[in-house]
Amino acid sequence: MSVGIVTEQTITFDSGIRLDSGRFLAPITLVYETYGTLNAAASNAILVEHAWTGNAHLAGKLNADEPKPGWWDTIVGPGKLLDTERYFVICSNVIGSCFGSTGPTSINPKTGRRYNLSFPVVTVRDMVRAQKLLIEALGIQRLLCVMGGSMGGMQALEWATQYPDSIGSAIVLATTPRPSPQAISLNAVARWAIFNDPTWRKGEYKHNPKDGLALARGIGHITFLSDESMNAKFGRRFSAKDGQFDFFGQFEVERYLNYNGYSFVDRFDANSFLYLAKALDLYDVAWGCESMSEAFNTVTAPIQFFAFSSDWLYPSYQTEEMVTCLTDMGKTVEYHLITSAYGHDAFLLEHETFAPMVRGFLDGVSVGSL
Amino acid sequence: MSVGIVTEQTITFDSGIRLDSGRFLAPITLVYETYGTLNAAASNAILVEHAWTGNAHLAGKLNADEPKPGWWDTIVGPGKLLDTERYFVICSNVIGSCFGSTGPTSINPKTGRRYNLSFPVVTVRDMVRAQKLLIEALGIQRLLCVMGGSMGGMQALEWATQYPDSIGSAIVLATTPRPSPQAISLNAVARWAIFNDPTWRKGEYKHNPKDGLALARGIGHITFLSDESMNAKFGRRFSAKDGQFDFFGQFEVERYLNYNGYSFVDRFDANSFLYLAKALDLYDVAWGCESMSEAFNTVTAPIQFFAFSSDWLYPSYQTEEMVTCLTDMGKTVEYHLITSAYGHDAFLLEHETFAPMVRGFLDGVSVGSL
Repeated sequence: MSVGIVTEQTITFDSGIRLDSGRFLAPITLVYETYGTLNAAASNAILVEHAWTGNAHLAGKLNADEPKPGWWDTIVGPGKLLDTERYFVICSNVIGSCFGSTGPTSINPKTGRRYNLSFPVVTVRDMVRAQKLLIEALGIQRLLCVMGGSMGGMQALEWATQYPDSIGSAIVLATTPRPSPQAISLNAVARWAIFNDPTWRKGEYKHNPKDGLALARGIGHITFLSDESMNAKFGRRFSAKDGQFDFFGQFEVERYLNYNGYSFVDRFDANSFLYLAKALDLYDVAWGCESMSEAFNTVTAPIQFFAFSSDWLYPSYQTEEMVTCLTDMGKTVEYHLITSAYGHDAFLLEHETFAPMVRGFLDGVSVGSL
Repeated sequence: MSVGIVTEQTITFDSGIRLDSGRFLAPITLVYETYGTLNAAASNAILVEHAWTGNAHLAGKLNADEPKPGWWDTIVGPGKLLDTERYFVICSNVIGSCFGSTGPTSINPKTGRRYNLSFPVVTVRDMVRAQKLLIEALGIQRLLCVMGGSMGGMQALEWATQYPDSIGSAIVLATTPRPSPQAISLNAVARWAIFNDPTWRKGEYKHNPKDGLALARGIGHITFLSDESMNAKFGRRFSAKDGQFDFFGQFEVERYLNYNGYSFVDRFDANSFLYLAKALDLYDVAWGCESMSEAFNTVTAPIQFFAFSSDWLYPSYQTEEMVTCLTDMGKTVEYHLITSAYGHDAFLLEHETFAPMVRGFLDGVSVGSL
């Protein structure tokens, strides 16, 4: 069942936060949505973290005419995996993004103009710092669970290591302790595509730099899919509209990336794309620590990890490095490698592959048996 | 030992060739180099095929001041793997390229101006059609061997399937029977980067469109390396010049791609890059056939295949598909999967990993024992 019509909420913290960079960001506005009801003990809250281009609109519809429900509607609702008759589910847009939370498109109160590139570089840890303010404002001392995939999983890891007393458990999907140089390089060429667009004007654009942003998205899109899924979906079919010997003729996969790249321009801001790409690349669970084990020393919550066999952006061996480290330290960890052809995006597309295990894990967490 | 100072040679065929597209290309000029001496029986010739951005300058130096020798100098010379005291080695720049052979930078005799985008789309088979004219002009009825990696391997496959009577053997490294949609999509975003460059002007530029071509090369470069080799070479080190919280700060791998991308602009033409990318994407060993086995039906020469474990552009399973097909058909095939961290570029960087097997194979071919 759907959660039905939902309302976007906004909260502003005038006090702001000190960022990893040393810079101070204030005020901070966060846009968020909640589903279900917080119980009297405030003990049934689950925070769901979104990925790079996600937003706070996790489930339901903002109005009856909205064509599609929220981005993870498949798992959030009455009777669904994150059962809103049981859990109070929260999703908040990260700082640096462009869906209402403070980011490069926000007005800098000191100048009265958009931040653009005067916005400070933010880290995944900074995103979680801001969320901590929200969770406190909602009257929650301790989240039952923090759950997310990709950049959402990085945020869950930050909760587990930086705010161990504030979470009861974490579920981490399709994530890495730190992106590899290959993953960084693919983000690097995406950034470069935007920098090359003369309409980007070092971030001082009136309209999104469409050619550069569409290409950047096209590059990202390749990393979210897999050799296998592209084979199944497109094979080597040539676009029916084009001749194979036309200079501008396209393969279907090429046309698909092109089309999706340009439609992305209508919904995501180029500067936010750049700031969040940077946050992803800088991410290191052991940031400021000598080692991964030092970083995991603070962890008290049980963590459930999922990796997907065809994910070549954040390959399973990277998740396994964390699982081995935590296991060796005697922490409570559960790990599932899901066989999937869907690449990095599998966590969004194939919820049925991990839902039974998540349900079992959450049940265990709820009764305190983990 | 080096082959020493070598001379670039040029030959023009006024008769031209009919291309796969149905279009006619004339005249055709080919630039080539040769090393060693053709024996009286014209039976010791080895044709080496170059890859995407390669050229005819395989070995030696064109003059004493040339900073580096030819691109595969490590294996061509007196006493080397392709021993020029024994073999007559030929390398020819492919049509569509920009190193002297007819391509989009050539003058169209009908207009007196550069072809640019009026140049016809060429295929790998067309490249080999042109080479066939060269080999005949050199008085060679039958090549002892055709050898190449990547696009060079595709050309060797075309010799084996299209001109079976004209070769005694083929050596195919880091090649695919047909690029996967993932490989196509990575070329597609590289093309897109050039199309986005306003100085490209649909191919009618005076100066190479540098930002677009550099980015296109950066994207390609990622596909030639591997997760492993990038880890070993760069890890996650941040450029010493930049601060991690600088918006434009770069990881070392990012700076490397950038630097190499821009230096590529000085040596390769953007339109040629596009034409050859298209030839790569269109490549299918079974072009015009119902199946791979139908395509391989004509093969008579023994073929030696090499794949490299960390090559994710043309992964080993794609070579293995050809090996299995040929083996099932009772053809003479040899296959080696080389364990390497160097990705697709391993065939250029690690000749010592395959040299002993190539030497054995060529010895067998020379004495007719294969």
